[in-house]
Amino acid sequence: MENSRFLRACRREAVDCTPVWMMRQAGRYLPEYRALRKKYSFWEMCKQPELAVEVTLQPLRRMEIDAAILFSDILVPLEGMGAGFEFIEGRGPVLDHPIRTAADIDKLSIIDAREVVPFVMEAIRMLRRELDGKVPLIGFSGAPFTLASYLVEGGGSRQYQHVKTLMYAEPELYHQLMVKITEVVISYLSAQIEAGAQVIQLFDSWVGCLNRADYYEYVYPYSRKIFQTLSTFKVPMIHFANQASTLLDMVRDAGGDIIGVDWRIDLDTAWKIIGDQQGIQGNLDPIILFAPISEIRNRVARILRQADGRPGHIFNLGHGILPTTPIDHAKAMIDAVHEFSAR
Amino acid sequence: MENSRFLRACRREAVDCTPVWMMRQAGRYLPEYRALRKKYSFWEMCKQPELAVEVTLQPLRRMEIDAAILFSDILVPLEGMGAGFEFIEGRGPVLDHPIRTAADIDKLSIIDAREVVPFVMEAIRMLRRELDGKVPLIGFSGAPFTLASYLVEGGGSRQYQHVKTLMYAEPELYHQLMVKITEVVISYLSAQIEAGAQVIQLFDSWVGCLNRADYYEYVYPYSRKIFQTLSTFKVPMIHFANQASTLLDMVRDAGGDIIGVDWRIDLDTAWKIIGDQQGIQGNLDPIILFAPISEIRNRVARILRQADGRPGHIFNLGHGILPTTPIDHAKAMIDAVHEFSAR
Repeated sequence: MENSRFLRACRREAVDCTPVWMMRQAGRYLPEYRALRKKYSFWEMCKQPELAVEVTLQPLRRMEIDAAILFSDILVPLEGMGAGFEFIEGRGPVLDHPIRTAADIDKLSIIDAREVVPFVMEAIRMLRRELDGKVPLIGFSGAPFTLASYLVEGGGSRQYQHVKTLMYAEPELYHQLMVKITEVVISYLSAQIEAGAQVIQLFDSWVGCLNRADYYEYVYPYSRKIFQTLSTFKVPMIHFANQASTLLDMVRDAGGDIIGVDWRIDLDTAWKIIGDQQGIQGNLDPIILFAPISEIRNRVARILRQADGRPGHIFNLGHGILPTTPIDHAKAMIDAVHEFSAR
Repeated sequence: MENSRFLRACRREAVDCTPVWMMRQAGRYLPEYRALRKKYSFWEMCKQPELAVEVTLQPLRRMEIDAAILFSDILVPLEGMGAGFEFIEGRGPVLDHPIRTAADIDKLSIIDAREVVPFVMEAIRMLRRELDGKVPLIGFSGAPFTLASYLVEGGGSRQYQHVKTLMYAEPELYHQLMVKITEVVISYLSAQIEAGAQVIQLFDSWVGCLNRADYYEYVYPYSRKIFQTLSTFKVPMIHFANQASTLLDMVRDAGGDIIGVDWRIDLDTAWKIIGDQQGIQGNLDPIILFAPISEIRNRVARILRQADGRPGHIFNLGHGILPTTPIDHAKAMIDAVHEFSAR
C-alpha cells in the first residue's frame, strides 16, 4: 500500500502514471448514490457508518480511481460543537442561530472527536477493511476559516459579510472562534488518522474571499497550526484552498505535502509558486466534464503537459464534480489521466 | 471639466488628490434610494429618465465623490435584444426562457441602442445638464461574457455551468452569441458616449470563473474589439474584470485606460502586472466599510501606500457597496482618500 501510486505521488516519488481522484466523487452524479438518498436523509448517510462506507465505495466500482475519500460533510464536527445545521433542499445547510456574539462563541464546545462523532471513525475503520489495501483512504476536514464562515453566516454565502465583519469589527471575538475551531479540527483529523485515514485533506473552500493581509493575519496561523500539529503523524496532508491563486505562497507556507489548486491558475504557474518542496493537486475545471469526450481528453493532456512529468502531481478536478455530470465523461477523464501519463 | 481630478487621473496626469467613487454608489444603502424604490419597481427606476437621474445624483449630495455613474442595470440592453429579465425579490434577475440553443440565439436581435433603449441616452443628457460640469459622468455596460452568462444561465449563477457547457460543447454557438452581444455593447456604449458620457466602464463581473486559456480564446477577442472600436471616441475607458487576478495581463491587453481590480490582489502587485501604460482602479473590500471608522482609515491608507502616489490611480471599492453599509462609513472612506492623498 505504501507503494501505491497515490501515496508515492504524495511523497513526490516516481510513479507508473499520475494518480487521480475527484472531489465529491462519492455523490449525486451516481444513480446508486441518488437511489440511497431517496431512502435516507443526507445526515443519516453521513452518520450511519454502513451508509457512509457504501457511498464511499460506489465510485471505485465504476472507475479506476486511485484513492477513496470518506463520504461525509465538512459540517459534521460543527454539529458536535453544538451548531447543528439543517440541510434544506435547494438552499443547502442552514443554521437556525448563526454564531455572531461572544455568548454564541462561548456556548460552542471544544469536542473530542472520538467521543462526539465516533461514527466517522467507525466508517474509516470499516472502509480500511473493505478497501483491503486496494487504494488509500483520504480523511478530511473543513479548514478553520471555512468552518467559521459557515457558523457566522449561518450557511453558505456569496459575500461573507458577517464573518468578515466579525473579523474587521471585532477581531478578538473572531480569534476566539478560530482558536476553538482549530482545536476541534486537530482533534477531528487526529482521530481520523488514528482510525486509519492514510491521507488527510484540509478544505479551505471559502478563503478566496479574503485579501492577502487578512489571510496572513486571520487565517494562516490557524491553518499552519493544524499542519504543524498533525505532522507528527507522518501521513501525507493535502491543503486545498479554493479560489486562492493570489494567496498561494501563503497557503503553501501554512503547510501540506500537496497543495490543491483550482483551474483559475495554470498548473505550471502554480507549481512555480509552490516550489520544489511540495506537490500539487489539480486542476481540471469540473465543467469540462460536460464537453465531448474528445475535448475532455485534450484538456487532460494540456494539464499533464503543464505538470511535465514532475513527481508529486495528483490529478483532480479544481472543485467538486457537479451532480449532473455524465458518468462516462468522468470515467473518460480518469482513464485519460492514466493513459496519457503512463511512463 | 477636462481638468477635473477624475479625468486627469484617467489620463495619468498629476492630481491634487486621488479621485474616488464607489461601484453601486447609487443604491440601496441610501434611505432616499429605498424611499423611491418603495414607489417604483427596479425596472421603472432604470427606464424613467427622471428617476434614473434622481438616483444617480443622490450619493453626490451626501459625499464628495469625484464622479457620477449613471443609475441603470447591465441587463438593460439584453431586454432590448429580446431577453426580458424579471427582478424577483431575493432571487435577483430571472429569465423565463434561458438562451441555450441555436434557435434561441437566432431570435436575439442586434439592436441600435439609440432606438431601443433611448431612455438611457435621455438620462445621460439630463444628467450632464444637472451635473453642470461639477463631476464627470460615467456610462457603463456589462462585458460580453458577463451578459452571455446572464442569458445562458437565465440569471445569476454560482457555477456558470450552462454558459461554460455551451463554450466547451458547442463553441460555434457560443461564438455566435458573443458576436451578437459584442455588437450590441458597442452600439450601447457608443450611444452613451454620444449622449454625453465622459467616461465608460465595462463590467466583466463573472469572468473570474474561467481559466486562462478559455479567457484568451472565448472572451479576450470580444472585449478587445469593444475597446478598439470605441477608442475612436477618445473618452477614457475603465475595464473592470471581477475576481480575475490570474487573468490580469490579458484583461490589460484587451484594453481600457484604467484597469479595475478587486481586493484579492494587492494593488501594487496588480499595477506591476498592468504596467506603465494604463492606470488602475480599486481596491478596498466593500466589507471593510462595516469595520470601525478608524480601521477603514487604516485600510484606505494601506491602499494609498501601495499606489505610492503614482499617477493614474482611481480609488474605488473592489466590488459594489453592500445594501446594509452605514452611510457615515462610506463617507469616512471617501474623505480619508482625499485627506491621505492630498499632494
